[in-house]
Amino acid sequence: MAGEEVVCGKVIKYDEVEATPVPREMATGTTIRWLISNEDGAKHFYMRLFEMEPGAHIKPHYHPWEHEIFILEGGGEVRIGDRVFKVEAGHVVFIPPNVEHEYKAGESGMKFLCIIPAAPTAEEVAEPLACK
Amino acid sequence: MAGEEVVCGKVIKYDEVEATPVPREMATGTTIRWLISNEDGAKHFYMRLFEMEPGAHIKPHYHPWEHEIFILEGGGEVRIGDRVFKVEAGHVVFIPPNVEHEYKAGESGMKFLCIIPAAPTAEEVAEPLACK
Repeated sequence: MAGEEVVCGKVIKYDEVEATPVPREMATGTTIRWLISNEDGAKHFYMRLFEMEPGAHIKPHYHPWEHEIFILEGGGEVRIGDRVFKVEAGHVVFIPPNVEHEYKAGESGMKFLCIIPAAPTAEEVAEPLACK
Repeated sequence: MAGEEVVCGKVIKYDEVEATPVPREMATGTTIRWLISNEDGAKHFYMRLFEMEPGAHIKPHYHPWEHEIFILEGGGEVRIGDRVFKVEAGHVVFIPPNVEHEYKAGESGMKFLCIIPAAPTAEEVAEPLACK
């Protein structure tokens, strides 16, 4: 149909996608690659790959959408609310909307996938949800 | 609030989640693990991990929702519409709704993540979309 693009998907190696530094106010020593986004025809959720240098830190934050995470390489610590988890390659992490979280890479660094929805999925809150 | 559960997320190793054989009419030599699903409080998209034995085959099919895939180990071939791609660990695959696709594992087998929306995201079609 004229003017309508048939999107046929894509196949790419992750490191063909540019790694952009995460701004200093949000993280140290961390890059993000947007592996699948709206530019690829994805409309509902996006796949990103984060690479954290040894000792890098993604600072505490919260937002009205969830994270679905898979640790690919290395490891470190993930805090969800009041709980801190040691993670390594093969760990799966689900962080619900509006729960505060942060990440610290261990001495090998940490590489992980993080999938997010295309738009917020919860109401904004003035304070993060309590999670003990 | 009474009766309202605060969901605090989860952290788990992928192999702590049961691997269920994919039915023979859909695939040979393939298991699926539902890593993140509605049972975990995920409402919008789900993360699954597939493991294919060497030479295993996920048969041609299509459906009105997309796939976001990351190849974790091994490799093989992914067909999207009329195009066949060789893939290996580190490849990212986006398959749009209603495009026919199939997977063949190579001699090392193939392990991959596949994220899907919680509900269909497109209209059902009588024939798969043309993708050349």
